[in-house]
Amino acid sequence: MSWTLARRAARLEPSTIREILKVTERPGIISLAGGLPSADGFPVQAMAEASARVLRDTPREALQYAASEGFGPLREWVAAELATQGLQADAAQVLITTGSQQGLDLVGKVLIDPGSRVAVESPTYLGALQAFNPYEADYVPVAGDDEGPRPEGLDAARGARFLYLLPNFQNPSGRCLTAARRQALAARALAIGLPIVEDNPYGDLWFDQPPPPPLSATMGEQSVYLGSFSKVLAPGLRLGYVLAPPALYPKLLQAKQAADLHSPGFNQRVVHEVIKDGFLRAHVPTIRARYRAQRDAMRAALERQLPPCCRWNVPAGGMFFWVELPQGLDATALLPRAVDAGVAYVPGAAFFAGDARANTLRLSFVTVSPERIEQGVAALGRVLAEALQQVPA
Amino acid sequence: MSWTLARRAARLEPSTIREILKVTERPGIISLAGGLPSADGFPVQAMAEASARVLRDTPREALQYAASEGFGPLREWVAAELATQGLQADAAQVLITTGSQQGLDLVGKVLIDPGSRVAVESPTYLGALQAFNPYEADYVPVAGDDEGPRPEGLDAARGARFLYLLPNFQNPSGRCLTAARRQALAARALAIGLPIVEDNPYGDLWFDQPPPPPLSATMGEQSVYLGSFSKVLAPGLRLGYVLAPPALYPKLLQAKQAADLHSPGFNQRVVHEVIKDGFLRAHVPTIRARYRAQRDAMRAALERQLPPCCRWNVPAGGMFFWVELPQGLDATALLPRAVDAGVAYVPGAAFFAGDARANTLRLSFVTVSPERIEQGVAALGRVLAEALQQVPA
Repeated sequence: MSWTLARRAARLEPSTIREILKVTERPGIISLAGGLPSADGFPVQAMAEASARVLRDTPREALQYAASEGFGPLREWVAAELATQGLQADAAQVLITTGSQQGLDLVGKVLIDPGSRVAVESPTYLGALQAFNPYEADYVPVAGDDEGPRPEGLDAARGARFLYLLPNFQNPSGRCLTAARRQALAARALAIGLPIVEDNPYGDLWFDQPPPPPLSATMGEQSVYLGSFSKVLAPGLRLGYVLAPPALYPKLLQAKQAADLHSPGFNQRVVHEVIKDGFLRAHVPTIRARYRAQRDAMRAALERQLPPCCRWNVPAGGMFFWVELPQGLDATALLPRAVDAGVAYVPGAAFFAGDARANTLRLSFVTVSPERIEQGVAALGRVLAEALQQVPA
Repeated sequence: MSWTLARRAARLEPSTIREILKVTERPGIISLAGGLPSADGFPVQAMAEASARVLRDTPREALQYAASEGFGPLREWVAAELATQGLQADAAQVLITTGSQQGLDLVGKVLIDPGSRVAVESPTYLGALQAFNPYEADYVPVAGDDEGPRPEGLDAARGARFLYLLPNFQNPSGRCLTAARRQALAARALAIGLPIVEDNPYGDLWFDQPPPPPLSATMGEQSVYLGSFSKVLAPGLRLGYVLAPPALYPKLLQAKQAADLHSPGFNQRVVHEVIKDGFLRAHVPTIRARYRAQRDAMRAALERQLPPCCRWNVPAGGMFFWVELPQGLDATALLPRAVDAGVAYVPGAAFFAGDARANTLRLSFVTVSPERIEQGVAALGRVLAEALQQVPA
């Protein structure tokens, strides 16, 4: 063998969860493990009409190479949308990416050296860890409480390249940072010179009231903000965006060009065609209503079916419940037994950059029917009850 | 400012060519600088029908998250297609990428450490240099002749991570390696343990006869092979593929997942829907015929309009003429004068990883009409003739 791998390749690991979860694709397993949005919410008709219009009206432009920055009118739309959230957004600072996963990769490429410290929530989004890992980040988990990372917890991250934060209905914890916590975190971050990378794939999926304004609204040029069309339209288009300050934008743009030249122009034009006249104002509320009903179904199932010593918060948006089992139970070790019982979940351990809390797990409530949620959670309850009998008191 | 850039970001540079060429987008300039395929060859009707079918028959699958490896039937199609070129291709070794540019990025990510030596042709594809640069490659240009890199030139690259090679109608030189040169290069590479990364975006665009089999056909597991749908269908879909040996495939897959989770499932299904029943067997010959006529128009224009001391080879496929000016002329320095005269080209210097040959330039013959090619080359001829009068004999 003549191939020599780069050192960073050692940080590219097969996902053990992914391997376990392949099992869950077999018929009969109720998978609460998915991170997928509900396909019931995909605006298929609008997509079909938009695709036809784009290929009728601008086929040569849609199918040709295009600017690395992204499709101009889509960048304008994103800037206008972000302005409604209090962000000072100029379309010139918007970079369209191949899903917001690519935004995370570009951020890592431009900002992380081997051994660079990167501050993260605990737990945090697994996909961000996967994006940053090959750049050999050294993670600093920020101490937190039920409301999220604690502002004074940032002090230990002083000098880190950035704080990665997912404030709205976080994957995996479902937690939404309060306005007060956001203000306190932003103030502390500014005070100690810690820039933030704010990721917001779920912010539109609120059930009762919109989340507070993003931290980036008060961070000025000390923040990078990431968004996505995956949850409000469809992930199969792979379109997201990055709002970056002038100090970073040119480097992110060069990195984007090196990574895939540009995101598919066809997809960008189709998405713009779908959303340009306010489609999302009517469409997103239908997703919210669907997910809220699903959330309620899972809440009821959890209350009925899980042993009373399990804890969870009711998410006010997004796609996930985060369940804490009693100390002594290991969700990774229990997964095969759960799968045998007909239900799958994601063990929480994968979402920790530092010491993992083995007694946690993530449940998605958006893709499975309420009846199957009830059955799945009941099966989980039986597995947990049985396991609890084996734990020394 | 609290942002600290990664060291590799210093290797992400704004493209000076890109800046120069922005000027060429103004009306009236005849741009022979493009690297774009002709939009006349985009199968718009087939795309429109396929998009409609995919969104009618499998909308939920097409718009949902999907496997990082790519759409199964498309991977099967690629494997079968590559088998006709003599490659031992198993669909399990095919990774669908977001354009073949992403394939280059993933190869760099998995194989290049800071300071790693990477052997390249001289000149070589600029996009590959841009992909490898942020991984801080140290390039070893391989000495060559009119037939391409010389086998004995590889000896100086012994111990390099790989040799990057574009054997068919290379961008920028238009050169196609002979069968004998391929065999000699492959044998030498195997003998000294130098693996190759073979890039083939243009192989289908032959004018007289298909190019010889890929080097990868005789390199076994010592090669990675990259292909693209950009030139035979349309680049705006951003779909390419990598064929990788078992020793590398899992790492490339993990890198792909970290980079953008997967390439758009919608696009993959549309492309598969278009090509699955042999569409390309009728379609690609129409592109070949169009490009051959364009090539002939440019050849005639060059013969009529350029000073006799300029040299070029007539490309047998692809999209580019590579012109060598007399020593003493600098194509980069002359570009503003050419633009003033109404024509644009890409100075050859950008395509060299090592010592650049300043007296070279690249002309695309595929997107401009024969009449405009004649006018553009005539303008170039006048600029060159004038410049030659200023060069000391």
